[in-house]
Amino acid sequence: MVNDNKLVYSYLRGKMLIAQDGINEGSEAEVYGWVLSIREQKTLSFVIVYENRKQVQLVIKDKKLMSSQLKQNSVIWAKGTIKITDKAPNGFEIHVSSLKVLSKPKKLPPFNIMSTDVPALDLRLDFRALDLRRPYNINLFTLRSKALQYFREYLISKDFLEVQTPKIIATASEGGAALFPLMYYDKQAFLAQSPQLYKEELTMSFEKVFEIGPIFRAEPSRTLKHLSEAISLDVEAAFHKNEDLMDFLEDMIRYVINRLYEKEGEALKRIKAPVLDVSKKFPRYSYSEVVSWINKNLEEIHEGEDLSSKHLEAFGDHAGGFYFIKDWPLKLKPFYIQPKDGDYSNSFDLMYRGLELSSGGERVHDPALLRKGLKRTGLSAKGFKYHLEVYNYGMPPHGGFGLGVDRFMMVVTGAENIREVVLYPRDVRRLVP
Amino acid sequence: MVNDNKLVYSYLRGKMLIAQDGINEGSEAEVYGWVLSIREQKTLSFVIVYENRKQVQLVIKDKKLMSSQLKQNSVIWAKGTIKITDKAPNGFEIHVSSLKVLSKPKKLPPFNIMSTDVPALDLRLDFRALDLRRPYNINLFTLRSKALQYFREYLISKDFLEVQTPKIIATASEGGAALFPLMYYDKQAFLAQSPQLYKEELTMSFEKVFEIGPIFRAEPSRTLKHLSEAISLDVEAAFHKNEDLMDFLEDMIRYVINRLYEKEGEALKRIKAPVLDVSKKFPRYSYSEVVSWINKNLEEIHEGEDLSSKHLEAFGDHAGGFYFIKDWPLKLKPFYIQPKDGDYSNSFDLMYRGLELSSGGERVHDPALLRKGLKRTGLSAKGFKYHLEVYNYGMPPHGGFGLGVDRFMMVVTGAENIREVVLYPRDVRRLVP
Repeated sequence: MVNDNKLVYSYLRGKMLIAQDGINEGSEAEVYGWVLSIREQKTLSFVIVYENRKQVQLVIKDKKLMSSQLKQNSVIWAKGTIKITDKAPNGFEIHVSSLKVLSKPKKLPPFNIMSTDVPALDLRLDFRALDLRRPYNINLFTLRSKALQYFREYLISKDFLEVQTPKIIATASEGGAALFPLMYYDKQAFLAQSPQLYKEELTMSFEKVFEIGPIFRAEPSRTLKHLSEAISLDVEAAFHKNEDLMDFLEDMIRYVINRLYEKEGEALKRIKAPVLDVSKKFPRYSYSEVVSWINKNLEEIHEGEDLSSKHLEAFGDHAGGFYFIKDWPLKLKPFYIQPKDGDYSNSFDLMYRGLELSSGGERVHDPALLRKGLKRTGLSAKGFKYHLEVYNYGMPPHGGFGLGVDRFMMVVTGAENIREVVLYPRDVRRLVP
Repeated sequence: MVNDNKLVYSYLRGKMLIAQDGINEGSEAEVYGWVLSIREQKTLSFVIVYENRKQVQLVIKDKKLMSSQLKQNSVIWAKGTIKITDKAPNGFEIHVSSLKVLSKPKKLPPFNIMSTDVPALDLRLDFRALDLRRPYNINLFTLRSKALQYFREYLISKDFLEVQTPKIIATASEGGAALFPLMYYDKQAFLAQSPQLYKEELTMSFEKVFEIGPIFRAEPSRTLKHLSEAISLDVEAAFHKNEDLMDFLEDMIRYVINRLYEKEGEALKRIKAPVLDVSKKFPRYSYSEVVSWINKNLEEIHEGEDLSSKHLEAFGDHAGGFYFIKDWPLKLKPFYIQPKDGDYSNSFDLMYRGLELSSGGERVHDPALLRKGLKRTGLSAKGFKYHLEVYNYGMPPHGGFGLGVDRFMMVVTGAENIREVVLYPRDVRRLVP
């Protein structure tokens, strides 16, 4: 059927989807899409078709057209006349005069894409391409694509340069933990757990850069918020101090969320997304303030100690929506973080109710101090030879952050499991499909 | 110096770069940037500073301000008064009243970033962060970032959904050659050489998708046009036939190039980019026509044989700018390509003077035919279990292409070596920096 030229529309030659020609009572319309649902009545049938992520209702009166091949998940072409009605999904329906099935399901599907009883996640991930036909997922991944567009829109408007740095690297950027090793021809290499050192180097020439790309972490734990492969939005800028970076990140988050509410309200409503209030300034708590609060309200912990999930969650319930935790102890931070007042650092995490969305801060730009940082964290300067070398040629003061795009989408959609917002998630148990 | 709050500008608090406040004679201006060049005269000095990828000329009359720390590559802050003059790079200069060096070079650099004698590529790649300070590279990577923006602009305007598919995969998508293997916890895995199977699966739900991301190929050959890690722009769409896909790709290329000429003419001029003519329709030669031409003009080859670099280059010289070679022999194509007339296929390559920029075509959507394709290419259906399974639930007729972003940038900039247009290239010899 794919060889029937008349049936397959040409994107550029104008035989386009109906919505682009305008939707007028009595106009003739063509649809190419797949069947979401069929409701057969005595004298007519209602068929909901998804055409490029939009629902279109077909009305079929001719019983001959309702062939046995036309069922949920069939891919079809249909032609007919538009009728305006507020009973149909997008305010109109098509009364069908011709219809062909272009591709029909060969087997009974493992679950019904219309079921209100959502099948178990593992089953859905095994048949992910089919699972993505659920209207919830069509809305969710449309929102994800739009969020990425709005992040870029913001960063480009602030004159940031989009860059792409290598994912195969020779040296662990934050120490040797949690890396996937691979053989690169005859050399040992790793998958990058972040573009950290590259984006820092690039502030030397380009001043303000960002990258949206995959990061890889060999974390064998199976939690609801970790993946082995995730998408990170990395930002790095010369001449930005800790508070400037928090201002920038906060402003960007506010911009993207406001754009989503403004432009994608319908999709947000359909997935019953939580309402996020970004009207107020995000509070900025110092690490020490959080420690005091935990000591007062939860249990005894010591200044300098890392905060556990339990601590972060309890404080998150107290703090509410978006907030920062800043000025972390230096000893909890990687070698490139700028020290502050001896034992602390010019660093921050952006949190949402106990979930870490972003981590950032000012970076060291003096090569001697960078060597000191390597020593402090037990790393050998030898592995960072090329990186240290460029610091000798005028590295600007700089800072930045990495934002977990998948976690951000958890917050936007209200998903409790990060796997829900990723097309084909990777974790310790899942490498397929 | 980074701790001096007064010196480091706040992006959001309004202490912004001069250009944003408007450039008016007599206005006070601040600059944060790094020094490209210094020209000292008897009574005054001219200092060119790069501020966020734009050149600003400083005029320093006070000899005390010309400290010994102020040299090429120094990072500085300066304050002064604007004077409008067409002798300066962007039509104005700043007469400096205060100046501080924020970061100074600690060593003599391995090459002069202003030298008209371009240092050898390998030396420049060893000190890539410094090399990127050369004005040529600042223009080149600005153009690259803009090209990516315009590609996305086009795809989003055509209602394509941006997706991100996994880079760690269980099965080779085109056979076992040229893959980087890695251990994924206790399993064997590979780095994805393309998002092929994922993007195809996604047409089932989202109809039209694109992805811009890294692809990995273990190609030990060291040519001027291959990398081990490259950036691919992948497009896949339901209901598109071979000619539709070529129309779409051609229209996208034309859009991006026209946008670059329209908006980035200055940067193109500065790097002496070639002028690309995209006004005419890109010719579409069939593989068989190319074979005939080679037989007539170059040497004897047989129908069905693959075309060598030599053949492609000779034909490229004949064909000129952009053109397609379509309808390749099926036996040269991977399992998922749609057959045409028995021994041929509904496929195409987009070429520019012998350089392959993109490869695409119609795909098989019938699961039985897909199994046949696997058999034809000697692949086991077992490794494609999950992929084959989803074809049972209504896969639409679909097609797409992958475009090499780095190669496209070679064409736009006129670079003869792909390493020039990639920030940190990866090949068989280079894993650092």
